[in-house]
Amino acid sequence: MGKVVAALSMSLDGFVADENDGVGELFGWYQNGDVEVPSADPRRVFHVSKASAGFLRHALTGTGALICGRRLFDRTDGWGGRHPAGCPVFVVSHTVPGGWPRPDSETSFHPDAISALEAAQDTAGERTVSVSTPALTQQYLDAGLLDELVVSVVPVLLGAGVSFFREQEVGPIRLADPDVIEGTGVTHLTYRVLR
Amino acid sequence: MGKVVAALSMSLDGFVADENDGVGELFGWYQNGDVEVPSADPRRVFHVSKASAGFLRHALTGTGALICGRRLFDRTDGWGGRHPAGCPVFVVSHTVPGGWPRPDSETSFHPDAISALEAAQDTAGERTVSVSTPALTQQYLDAGLLDELVVSVVPVLLGAGVSFFREQEVGPIRLADPDVIEGTGVTHLTYRVLR
Repeated sequence: MGKVVAALSMSLDGFVADENDGVGELFGWYQNGDVEVPSADPRRVFHVSKASAGFLRHALTGTGALICGRRLFDRTDGWGGRHPAGCPVFVVSHTVPGGWPRPDSETSFHPDAISALEAAQDTAGERTVSVSTPALTQQYLDAGLLDELVVSVVPVLLGAGVSFFREQEVGPIRLADPDVIEGTGVTHLTYRVLR
Repeated sequence: MGKVVAALSMSLDGFVADENDGVGELFGWYQNGDVEVPSADPRRVFHVSKASAGFLRHALTGTGALICGRRLFDRTDGWGGRHPAGCPVFVVSHTVPGGWPRPDSETSFHPDAISALEAAQDTAGERTVSVSTPALTQQYLDAGLLDELVVSVVPVLLGAGVSFFREQEVGPIRLADPDVIEGTGVTHLTYRVLR
């Protein structure tokens, strides 16, 4: 089975969005370089530093399924039906939003984190299941189901906002030393979760 | 004048001590390697990885004055009168603790963060003033008086404890991309604060 990975951009003081759910400060690195990286959505092309390009290509092409929460799904309007990674999307949500599911989109809805993960792993096979919501990341961490944390640390202190890490149900969770990729306006740290 | 630098060890989820003020998980890198690094206190010798040794020697020898809060001072019992960096210590405290100041220790007490910084800078001259308390770090950040943040990120999620970063009075504070030193059990990130 493929890895279960949580990958988010985070300010040095631990936020994945500002107080108004804005991500302008944190997503700047997707458009601050010369290297063009296409996504699965032809309307969305990234322009990143050389170091970030390798990181981003690997993330986009290696992902076989994406899990998110209802809030992120609503905020992005379900990525218009097609996520930049081009993979099926598994939304954890008690209700199915109006207009969904759509015949032109591989997007499905699941009542809880565990059933969403099982369905995502079935679809992803040997490829990575990517978790892109902080609350779900913490649930999978607590349950011992997360293999890697990929933190793209942005050199800014936001001072307030939506935290990446949440109240943890278990004691210290130890990680291996990270792989480090030094981009422009971002430092990508990939940590393996130790069991 | 020398730089004003805040240097702390922090878990990936942003804590500089656990819920009981313990730092065992965070200070492991000071004793997990083969390279001996002496401190100014002969009873305290560090054993670190090769990468951390250069980082630590630079920090210990480059510091001309150290600022801390009363809580850290009390917890360490004033480092027995002699901080490992061998420099004078400036404690921010409304009251002077019993038995202090001592004739054998270059430790002084100052009623507020600003007067402590002025006195520390007078003493340090061209050398670094090191800030080693989270609350004071945030005060100097808010006041635009901090030049660098040195975060030794430890690969662990504590889930709870004493946070490095606090509620910030000002909007986003932008930093330059960090210098990165990859130690064992720690990643040292040195960020310059942009004005």
